[in-house]
Amino acid sequence: MKETPKDKGRYAYEGLERIFHERSRLGILSGLAAHAEGLLFNDLKQLVALTDGNLSRQIQILQEEGLIEVEKKFVNNRPQTRCLMTDAGKKRFWEYINELERVVHDAAKSEKHAGKARPATA
Amino acid sequence: MKETPKDKGRYAYEGLERIFHERSRLGILSGLAAHAEGLLFNDLKQLVALTDGNLSRQIQILQEEGLIEVEKKFVNNRPQTRCLMTDAGKKRFWEYINELERVVHDAAKSEKHAGKARPATA
Repeated sequence: MKETPKDKGRYAYEGLERIFHERSRLGILSGLAAHAEGLLFNDLKQLVALTDGNLSRQIQILQEEGLIEVEKKFVNNRPQTRCLMTDAGKKRFWEYINELERVVHDAAKSEKHAGKARPATA
Repeated sequence: MKETPKDKGRYAYEGLERIFHERSRLGILSGLAAHAEGLLFNDLKQLVALTDGNLSRQIQILQEEGLIEVEKKFVNNRPQTRCLMTDAGKKRFWEYINELERVVHDAAKSEKHAGKARPATA
C-alpha cells in the first residue's frame, strides 16, 4: 500500500465526535447554524423531520453539552420555545465540519484516482 | 424563518445511512476506497486504528451488507486476509459521500452568511 506506518490512524477520523456525528443531532445543528436568530421548536421539528419526543431528547443532550441554549417564554399566553446555538457550539460545530470535509475530500481523491478503472455502469 | 412548510425535512439528511455513517465503518470504507487493489487486514487495522476484534466485527457487517468482499489465502503457510470494496459498495459509498457533501455545503453557506456577525474570537 502507499501509506507507511506513520500513517497510523490516517482514516480514523477522530474529529468526528459522536455528539455531532449522530444524524438527528447533525440535522438540528445544521438547521440552527443556518438560522442565527434561532428557531422555534415547531419550525425546527419540521426542518429535521423528528417526532416531538425525539427532538426534545436531542435538544436536552445538546443543551447539557453547552452547544445550544433554549429560551422559553409566553407569547399570547402560549408557551414558546426557541433554540439557538451558543458561541462554543458554533466553534465546535465548525471543527466537526472541517473533519467531515476531510472525509469528503479523501473520497473525492479516491474517486478521481479510481476514475479510469471504474466500469461505466458503476 | 426563511424556509417554508415545503422545506419539511430540509435538514433530515436521510441519505446518511447508518451502515456508512458509523465512524469506524466510514473509516474502513474510506481507506478501502483509496486502495482499489484492496488492503490486508493488518494494514487496514493500522489505518483505521481499531482493535482486531472491532475491525473483524465491522468487516463482517460490511460483508453481510454486500459492500466489501474478503479474500482469504495462505502465503508462505500463513493465512492472509484481504478486503476490497464491491462495485455495489463503491456505488452506495459515493451516494453517501454526496449526502455528506451536502451537509458540508450547507454549513459553509451558514458560515458565510454568519460571517459578519461572528466575533473575531469565535
